[in-house]
Amino acid sequence: MDVAVIGASMTQFGQRDAWIRELIAEAGEACLADAAVAPDEVDHLYVSNMASGEFEGQGGIMNALAHDLGLMPAYSERVDQTSSSGGAGIYEAWQSIASGASEMTLLVGGEKMTHRTTAEATDVIASITHPAEYKHGVTLPSFAGMTARHYLERFDAPRDSLAKVAAKNHANGVDNPHAQFQKEVDVETILDSPIVADPLRLYDFCPITDGSAALLFCPVDVAEEYTDDYAVVSGIGGATDTHVVHEREDPTVMGGVVESGRQAYEMAGIGPDDVDVAELHDMFTILEFLQMEGLDFADHGEAWKDVEDGRTERDGELPINTSGGLKSKGHPLGASGVAQGYEIYKQVIGDAGPRQVEADTALACNVGGFGNCVITTIMEASQ
Amino acid sequence: MDVAVIGASMTQFGQRDAWIRELIAEAGEACLADAAVAPDEVDHLYVSNMASGEFEGQGGIMNALAHDLGLMPAYSERVDQTSSSGGAGIYEAWQSIASGASEMTLLVGGEKMTHRTTAEATDVIASITHPAEYKHGVTLPSFAGMTARHYLERFDAPRDSLAKVAAKNHANGVDNPHAQFQKEVDVETILDSPIVADPLRLYDFCPITDGSAALLFCPVDVAEEYTDDYAVVSGIGGATDTHVVHEREDPTVMGGVVESGRQAYEMAGIGPDDVDVAELHDMFTILEFLQMEGLDFADHGEAWKDVEDGRTERDGELPINTSGGLKSKGHPLGASGVAQGYEIYKQVIGDAGPRQVEADTALACNVGGFGNCVITTIMEASQ
Repeated sequence: MDVAVIGASMTQFGQRDAWIRELIAEAGEACLADAAVAPDEVDHLYVSNMASGEFEGQGGIMNALAHDLGLMPAYSERVDQTSSSGGAGIYEAWQSIASGASEMTLLVGGEKMTHRTTAEATDVIASITHPAEYKHGVTLPSFAGMTARHYLERFDAPRDSLAKVAAKNHANGVDNPHAQFQKEVDVETILDSPIVADPLRLYDFCPITDGSAALLFCPVDVAEEYTDDYAVVSGIGGATDTHVVHEREDPTVMGGVVESGRQAYEMAGIGPDDVDVAELHDMFTILEFLQMEGLDFADHGEAWKDVEDGRTERDGELPINTSGGLKSKGHPLGASGVAQGYEIYKQVIGDAGPRQVEADTALACNVGGFGNCVITTIMEASQ
Repeated sequence: MDVAVIGASMTQFGQRDAWIRELIAEAGEACLADAAVAPDEVDHLYVSNMASGEFEGQGGIMNALAHDLGLMPAYSERVDQTSSSGGAGIYEAWQSIASGASEMTLLVGGEKMTHRTTAEATDVIASITHPAEYKHGVTLPSFAGMTARHYLERFDAPRDSLAKVAAKNHANGVDNPHAQFQKEVDVETILDSPIVADPLRLYDFCPITDGSAALLFCPVDVAEEYTDDYAVVSGIGGATDTHVVHEREDPTVMGGVVESGRQAYEMAGIGPDDVDVAELHDMFTILEFLQMEGLDFADHGEAWKDVEDGRTERDGELPINTSGGLKSKGHPLGASGVAQGYEIYKQVIGDAGPRQVEADTALACNVGGFGNCVITTIMEASQ
């Protein structure tokens, strides 16, 4: 059964004076309004969220949301796949429709983080890594630093190329009213910012963010009762890689990206050349290179050249992170994959405003942990 | 597509000297061995777990398990639906097969709780209730006490009838080698035990437990390549009720039980009279009455008579909780719904040992929160 997306929303991302329950209610309500679908039409509700318990001492948020939006007796569930919980939510929503279990599925991703210190948030996030590494103090930023150093040296890539990823995504974020940072940042500022995990500096990292995003799914034949402008989830795949990062044969290859991308391309019956625009998981600048290569947008070790050449800018051949990416938009863990879905949905239905590019086919790659689990989603325009 | 269960396992339930990662690895490995399925045949992995972060400061357990069992690049996800996470995992596993996303799905439920005090565990669990109630100190045991008092007075049911639920389930648990308590408890002992939430006493409550259980799902045509003795998931449904418990019209009716049961019966094309054996979520003795009535095994207000008459004993017309139920088996939150699935699978394939009853059709009802979300599953014998 072909699965459609008929509505989307996202809240303002940033430092929000609202708890997780309020954030997901805001996005969920706006998504139903966007599609003009009534609460009692919703069969299944998925809430992508990594750690409301750890961050806020709040459990059961999916049941609270079903109540707050008046969705009862809809089935509700919380989906956790660490930082790719949003992408996993898209996959679960897809399965709920494709299996016939649901005819209308609401997916809401959200996370409330900024009330905790950076150290506290980093520690919660580090608990998703393997204890063998966690207990030795290896956090995700330190994996990113080591990987970046290895990549730059091995492929003779200039340090500037990483900074240009951040500068590009910040430039895109200027046109995203929901982004946490709506300001340009030049390469010099990035290269002069404080070192976090050598060679990566402050501006190579996404911020800590509160926010929520939502998508509404149904079978294509149901979608056509509501709108002519919908997106079809034409390809989707999910995959794990070694949980112990240092066991990987090549630290510059994320196996989960490669495998989830392969599945998504195969299901959609397309290849990387058919993708018009992509949202990649730039939690750290180096990750944009690894995903470009893992998804075959560039050869291994050569993604940095595309960034240098401007190929991935908004007016380039393959625009990447037109939303501003996690870098400028922010990264509320459970929301990020759903917000990627929001952007590619808006691009393929032609409703991306000043960020609009020419796009019939769009791809999103949502990375959990340090590539421990990855979801790749492809959406195509209905017309 | 018809979905089969071809393997199952559960660990010893009780106070375990093992962390959550070890518990789920133990059950997952045993389940694959039970079905003689190799790790590289698994496409999707679901881990039902409510709160490894809150209980143990450990995130990412689904990715850790994919690694520990050698399942990469299988898709992995953690499913949280509070105390019905296990049932929700069965529903997700079913959807993964029915949608064609997976041809072999491993579901592992688990929770590690006994290293925390009862007060700490109760507080984590209470965080899944609505803040309007949680902040006023209402915990799940207090809901149970109020509901029990109302039920007994309104339906003129004797206090003994609740004690007989506990005594029956303890008697069944004697024959379950995985149960936390393998001992009979007589009605007098139950009625003399300390009051927890009047009129409910210590023995009206399930214990706090560590443990894990697992099930292996595939399409029926794949199942037949492995075995003649498999179970078919012939019906399944999930539903929410009001998250604010005191907003319900009738405190003795759990809307989520009624609606999830209706869905499961409709999908299976059967009614309550066709069910040969059932596992109900007896976290508190009163819940067994509410589920018997919500699932139409008894009329409203009359389930207690069936217990008084012995109808639900192992040699009765409708044996309930042949496993010993949560009461004697224990209740490791995320594992419980999967362990219910283990019992009904064993019953319909005729492999329940001394607990075996005559059963072609079996039902499990897994309750989250105080009926905030409920999953009902029906399995039938393959032959």
